[in-house]
Amino acid sequence: MAKQTKSPAKKKYVFFYGFGKKHTEGDASMKAILGGKGANLAEMANAGLPVPPGFTISTEACAYYSKHNSQYPAGMMEQLKAQLAKLEKMTGKKLGDPRDPLLVSVRSGAAISMPGMMDTVLNLGLTDKSICGFIEKTGQERAGWDCYRRFVDMFGDVVMGPSTGLTHHDFEVEMQRLKDKYGAKEDTALTADQLKELVDIYKRVYQQKVKKPFPQDPMEQLRLSVNAVFGSWNSERAEKYRQINKVTGLLGTAVNVCTMVFGNMGSTSGTGVSFTRDGATGEDKPMGEYLINAQGEDVVAGIRTPKHLEEMVNEPDPLWKKMYAELRAIMARLERHYKYPQDVEFTIEQGKLWMLQTRNAKRTGLAGVRWAVEMATGRDVFAGKAQPKILSAKEAVLTLHGNDLEQLLFPIFHIEEEKKAEVIATGLPAGPGAGVGKIVFYAHDAEAMVGKNKDEKVILVRHETSPEDVGGMWAAQGILTSTGGMTSHAAVVARGWGKCCIAGASALHINYDTRTVTVGHNTLKEGDWISLNGSTGIVYRGQIGTQASPVVEAVAHGNKEARKHPIYKMYKQVSDWSDEFRKMKVRTNADLPKDAAVGREFGAEGIGLCRTEHMFFEGERIWAVREFILADSKEAREKALAKLLPLQRGDFEGIFKAMNGLPVTIRLIDPPLHEFVPHGAREQEEMATRLGLPVEKVAQRVKQLHEMNPMLGHRGCRLSITYPELCVMQTQAIIEAACNVEKKKVKVLPEIMVPLVGAKTELDYCARIIRSVAERIIKDRKSKVKYLVGTMIEIPRAALTADQIAESAEFFSFGTNDLTQMTFGFSRDDIGSFLPAYLNEKILPVDPFQTLDAGGVGQLVEMGVKRGRETRPDLKCGICGEHGGDPNSVKFCYKVGLNYVSCSPYRVPIARLAAAQAAIVR
Amino acid sequence: MAKQTKSPAKKKYVFFYGFGKKHTEGDASMKAILGGKGANLAEMANAGLPVPPGFTISTEACAYYSKHNSQYPAGMMEQLKAQLAKLEKMTGKKLGDPRDPLLVSVRSGAAISMPGMMDTVLNLGLTDKSICGFIEKTGQERAGWDCYRRFVDMFGDVVMGPSTGLTHHDFEVEMQRLKDKYGAKEDTALTADQLKELVDIYKRVYQQKVKKPFPQDPMEQLRLSVNAVFGSWNSERAEKYRQINKVTGLLGTAVNVCTMVFGNMGSTSGTGVSFTRDGATGEDKPMGEYLINAQGEDVVAGIRTPKHLEEMVNEPDPLWKKMYAELRAIMARLERHYKYPQDVEFTIEQGKLWMLQTRNAKRTGLAGVRWAVEMATGRDVFAGKAQPKILSAKEAVLTLHGNDLEQLLFPIFHIEEEKKAEVIATGLPAGPGAGVGKIVFYAHDAEAMVGKNKDEKVILVRHETSPEDVGGMWAAQGILTSTGGMTSHAAVVARGWGKCCIAGASALHINYDTRTVTVGHNTLKEGDWISLNGSTGIVYRGQIGTQASPVVEAVAHGNKEARKHPIYKMYKQVSDWSDEFRKMKVRTNADLPKDAAVGREFGAEGIGLCRTEHMFFEGERIWAVREFILADSKEAREKALAKLLPLQRGDFEGIFKAMNGLPVTIRLIDPPLHEFVPHGAREQEEMATRLGLPVEKVAQRVKQLHEMNPMLGHRGCRLSITYPELCVMQTQAIIEAACNVEKKKVKVLPEIMVPLVGAKTELDYCARIIRSVAERIIKDRKSKVKYLVGTMIEIPRAALTADQIAESAEFFSFGTNDLTQMTFGFSRDDIGSFLPAYLNEKILPVDPFQTLDAGGVGQLVEMGVKRGRETRPDLKCGICGEHGGDPNSVKFCYKVGLNYVSCSPYRVPIARLAAAQAAIVR
Repeated sequence: MAKQTKSPAKKKYVFFYGFGKKHTEGDASMKAILGGKGANLAEMANAGLPVPPGFTISTEACAYYSKHNSQYPAGMMEQLKAQLAKLEKMTGKKLGDPRDPLLVSVRSGAAISMPGMMDTVLNLGLTDKSICGFIEKTGQERAGWDCYRRFVDMFGDVVMGPSTGLTHHDFEVEMQRLKDKYGAKEDTALTADQLKELVDIYKRVYQQKVKKPFPQDPMEQLRLSVNAVFGSWNSERAEKYRQINKVTGLLGTAVNVCTMVFGNMGSTSGTGVSFTRDGATGEDKPMGEYLINAQGEDVVAGIRTPKHLEEMVNEPDPLWKKMYAELRAIMARLERHYKYPQDVEFTIEQGKLWMLQTRNAKRTGLAGVRWAVEMATGRDVFAGKAQPKILSAKEAVLTLHGNDLEQLLFPIFHIEEEKKAEVIATGLPAGPGAGVGKIVFYAHDAEAMVGKNKDEKVILVRHETSPEDVGGMWAAQGILTSTGGMTSHAAVVARGWGKCCIAGASALHINYDTRTVTVGHNTLKEGDWISLNGSTGIVYRGQIGTQASPVVEAVAHGNKEARKHPIYKMYKQVSDWSDEFRKMKVRTNADLPKDAAVGREFGAEGIGLCRTEHMFFEGERIWAVREFILADSKEAREKALAKLLPLQRGDFEGIFKAMNGLPVTIRLIDPPLHEFVPHGAREQEEMATRLGLPVEKVAQRVKQLHEMNPMLGHRGCRLSITYPELCVMQTQAIIEAACNVEKKKVKVLPEIMVPLVGAKTELDYCARIIRSVAERIIKDRKSKVKYLVGTMIEIPRAALTADQIAESAEFFSFGTNDLTQMTFGFSRDDIGSFLPAYLNEKILPVDPFQTLDAGGVGQLVEMGVKRGRETRPDLKCGICGEHGGDPNSVKFCYKVGLNYVSCSPYRVPIARLAAAQAAIVR
Repeated sequence: MAKQTKSPAKKKYVFFYGFGKKHTEGDASMKAILGGKGANLAEMANAGLPVPPGFTISTEACAYYSKHNSQYPAGMMEQLKAQLAKLEKMTGKKLGDPRDPLLVSVRSGAAISMPGMMDTVLNLGLTDKSICGFIEKTGQERAGWDCYRRFVDMFGDVVMGPSTGLTHHDFEVEMQRLKDKYGAKEDTALTADQLKELVDIYKRVYQQKVKKPFPQDPMEQLRLSVNAVFGSWNSERAEKYRQINKVTGLLGTAVNVCTMVFGNMGSTSGTGVSFTRDGATGEDKPMGEYLINAQGEDVVAGIRTPKHLEEMVNEPDPLWKKMYAELRAIMARLERHYKYPQDVEFTIEQGKLWMLQTRNAKRTGLAGVRWAVEMATGRDVFAGKAQPKILSAKEAVLTLHGNDLEQLLFPIFHIEEEKKAEVIATGLPAGPGAGVGKIVFYAHDAEAMVGKNKDEKVILVRHETSPEDVGGMWAAQGILTSTGGMTSHAAVVARGWGKCCIAGASALHINYDTRTVTVGHNTLKEGDWISLNGSTGIVYRGQIGTQASPVVEAVAHGNKEARKHPIYKMYKQVSDWSDEFRKMKVRTNADLPKDAAVGREFGAEGIGLCRTEHMFFEGERIWAVREFILADSKEAREKALAKLLPLQRGDFEGIFKAMNGLPVTIRLIDPPLHEFVPHGAREQEEMATRLGLPVEKVAQRVKQLHEMNPMLGHRGCRLSITYPELCVMQTQAIIEAACNVEKKKVKVLPEIMVPLVGAKTELDYCARIIRSVAERIIKDRKSKVKYLVGTMIEIPRAALTADQIAESAEFFSFGTNDLTQMTFGFSRDDIGSFLPAYLNEKILPVDPFQTLDAGGVGQLVEMGVKRGRETRPDLKCGICGEHGGDPNSVKFCYKVGLNYVSCSPYRVPIARLAAAQAAIVR
């Protein structure tokens, strides 16, 4: 910018469009400068479509205006005048001409669609003089005055309103008064004379508020309108919108000055909007509305109820049937041209169709997938009907957003029922899908209720969940927490299972004693029904009907019938394409054989993270773990571990079988020991009794395990270094399990992963134990099992010293959850108190626990890969943090050369798609 | 090594020395290969000193031997034989010659002195045959048999002992039996025949344990001895020693084979050791011992009580006076030659002086400083007597260890009293000096007792301290904690004040209820006297007398008389030299005017870190802080802050005045808010009463402030972003204070520092507030105050994105405490549970909170400086973590181009010295 403003006279700020390719100066590629609307108008003009001609003032002019205290850049005004003169010459009309005036609309348009900015001023150029010429030339007296009163209203409201307080309402009041006076029910019932009277009234209203008469110089009207558009870029509403929607990097808005066409010139005129295909279901059928004898604002403002587009063919005047056909043809042409369904605006002026705008249509995930599949296969997935093929498979894959597939995977509410349901709170959409059930407050209650009656549906409601709650979480239909973020325990576990979860619904006041939850004045009690929409974060009172996902039925539950469902077919098609194009592997995170199997069915090519400690909580095992923790000597610890060994070995056998032929990365114990002991007095007493110890000893040990910052405490490989016998037992369980299943012809590829390594010496220490235990077993059993020893890279220092660590590590797995915590200095359990402010103030563009922070944490990932491979060129690198299932993060992983990403089973298809997109774009 | 072993035949493994420069193949620079002893023997031979000739087998041979299963490198044995032949030729004696045998000693010697390895075998070459030649040639029958029995004993114990269990004791028993038999009281009373008898007995003892006769082939004796030395390098004791003393990077030990000289040839022979100067006090006076008619081991083993070296001049035989003069002359020459006081071994054989070894002498910090000052100034600092000038000032500075100055700064125990005192526990030497007082368990008690009687001496004994305790900590003579490490709250605060502190004395069991502390079977109660040696970490029962440091008297207490004390003069001299040579600035960390003044007196050139929150605890302020925390609205928070404003402003005025003309870096509030609220029910009630709030509300807010990982929680700039009014108030206090003192002609240079920044946007947000508030005040007051806005670099991401952050930051200060925590993933409050294992297992070479981890954390510091200066070439960079006072870390800081280091006031002289050393070496 700095350079450009130095020689502003040479810079082009105003671009002409219309009258075909020859005269049009822009195209669709110039969105950054012309805005979306301007670029598409130019593109349509280039394509020879009927676009009312005009010109676009560039976003760069807006940027200059914003930065230079509302001054235009040098040369802009001259260019504007020159383009206006060209427009006047080519249309044969002149702005403000009392005989045949050119009327124009002025519309904002940034590079992406953005509510909150000044939208539209229509009919600009009308004055007390030019109105006569307009009426004379068109013969439309009533339409003329209707245009004029609309113009005064819009100009007053939109252009002058922000500085004077004048609003549309001020005019509406007068219109109503006039309608009452003449007994007119609808606006259209007002006669030309009545509208003329209204114009006079409107001008008085204008003068009262603005303290100046309504401007009669069309150039002044135009100048003020341009300023208003520019000014609205920095309006509070627009800023807020950009903040909320994380819109960054735009210069400003463009201003489109377009020749007016009139949908309000009687019964052969009209205006409307339409999607070229259904944006909700994805069906290949236009979804639009129109109004006869109206200007565009009427459709949007809802003054009159518009008709469905298809009704056009039933209008009494056969002209409309023709118009419909023309419009459909243009819509089809636009889809082919843009290779994407469009959202268009059109006006019909006395039987002539004009296209005012086109843009890529917005849609649901389901519709997005259907569009992509149908546009590329040329076949309706539901009806089987043939369609034109518009896209190649690669192009189709690129039209999808990362999370579109998600909507195919989870049960969803019946849309109409959800619309009517009572919202009681909102939280973070932490686990996908819909969940309906009775409120329970304790995990053991949830387990017990479902244990007694397997059709019982419960929702577990907690301040937050802990590893002890997993049984109840699994039993529940959904989980609702009042604290915690997108990566809280509840959220991570729920997503891992594809289970519905809403986290951090802070309006909930949970009272465990009374077993009630209060929101505002509402109190719900245990047993009351609630419904959670885990995709939006909304909590509803009562039961909303749901429908299951055919994809999950087919994939995870092996329901063969579900494979015939069109939604499954779409999923399958996208997945097949993903696998065809992607070059990076996708694994799954799974701790249990059943999760591993689901991940594999969803296309995972191995396990990227199997957390051994999750196995420690199940059933009786926790008691062996606790015995270990309370033990006073190495011998006593080994005795306790000996009880765990066969159980762990059994788990690993199950996982190895489920992943036959695929690699399985097993992480040694990671969490601090205090997570395995109870903190309540009653539970400690129980523990003392079971372990035959004085309760004081239990209490003392629990206290001793307390840490100020457990995240940075005695955990990960630090446990294996202080208690090497733990590392011995786990290695033994893994390798013995591998040997056992290998005998049963299972192909097993264990990768033993040491967590929380920050220095090569830590890995050396653990790897020495692992390799010596493993070699001994393999030799004793005369087995041929091959295994790898590698490490998590999750501590900044590990990435910084990856060249050294790679001397001992045969693979790296980036643990970007912890790496993000330490690189940012953010405890993800505690960011709730400041993250909202950070996102609001745009201090962070997104939650870095959801999307990998490429600029900071990503530097360490890239450094880790690069340095690691300097030492060991064939070093296998993957990622096993939550980011492995986030589309943007997956793309980053591909860019920095990871061999695989790993994510929860239900995100595997999403990761596969993102990996394909990354490979195609590259 | 790999390359060298490929052509081993060409490699030189055995180096000759003796007979002057012409024949000597090594020198003092070759310590890595010849070991310290071998290199110094060669160096002395080169200098023409009387050294018994011999040869040295290199450390590289030892390394090869260790790695290749006890094989010599090819060529070594041939070289050894050739050098032996040369030695035989030049001495005219032959090993094992029955007429005139060459006897040798075999001694280990690594590059640094290291106990635990095989030490010495004397008289090697004696056999049943050669003993006759020896006696015949020397005429010393008794000495001959004495040598032989010593040889059998040493060879059996040292060479064969490790593999057979034979020990010195096995021989001692026989010696005693023989002495009893003949009624001999002392060894020297045994006659030649009796000793001959003893040799036979010894050989039998040998054969019994070794199952082989005592070897009669001298080459076999030599080979076995060399193997024993090589083998001892990997002995458990030697490994342990290297571990404990963090000795790394050595190849192995060398083996010195030296012609024997005999101190046991009657009354004109003798042996001894001496320091050239006193290693305890530093006085320029030899400190040594000798024995007449003895071999070296007798001095060391303490069989006979040696005499003080000076007594030599009083021996009846005037020969000894001459010997003394010769020895003194050689010692003086060695000091000049090595430019450092020496620790020598010598033997006098029938009136001829031989030097057997020399090495740099070990000494106390006090002695080290005295040596440096006296050797460079040529004047005794106590007596004023002239001495030869041996060193330049630069050389003198380089002889000092970083912490030597520390011993000059703190009160110390009277040495004799301390020796006799009863040790009750040990902990970490967390705060320097000596502290004596009565036990108190509560900070408020400490304050109250000293408040009532200012001569009351108390020691505050706590599990750990917290910011609420600072009043009592200040009042106490010393602080003793049972948990926490070198960087725990107690340790950091105590060091900041130069106060005695022992942390983590885990044997203490403190019972606050009974007000007792139990160690093992001892129970001490409140009011009992204890004494702490903060430099060693030892806790004593009772009162030990102390003496104050004249340096502190002079510098910190302004006692002019103390400036005349020689210790002060030495301190002053070293400090002056430090300032002359160093190029990096040294600042101090200080929160209060009195600390700032002390730091300045110790030579600080500004404040590198003024922690504003420490001011929040004093007196009534805490109530305003708590009101702020409990407030429900921004207005209420601003009201509470308005009470703090004048107090903070007053503090800053005091600090600015104390640092007139020097820059003051003020860090905005850093700790999480929960540090300011009480966690006990009683205190919360008090708080509720004072603030006029329901106690539930207080309890709820305290609970809400609880964090899982407060280190990574809502603190630092995150507070200023969620509560911008806090940033406003602090800026106001700083800038208003600056304007106020400026009017009083104080030159004020405030540097406002934003803590815990991880992203440029965070700093932008805070800097915008700071600059707008500051500019407004400066403009209103028509002031000319200049200020800077900068940031801590203490989060890994800040270092990674330093190029961006430097766009907003005018200076960087590396907060290496937190940076170390996050880069390693270590909570310094919690490392106690695994750090000891990490140091033991050599997983970490040192505690990274004490010495900056150059390889990991240091990478981020270097990256931060480099990237920051890419954006802003003149970016001022400093360090304000605890590392700023650690000599090695200071050197690192200089290397990476920091402009200054900042440390606690009492470490400023140490940092100045380290900075000087860094600049000289560079």
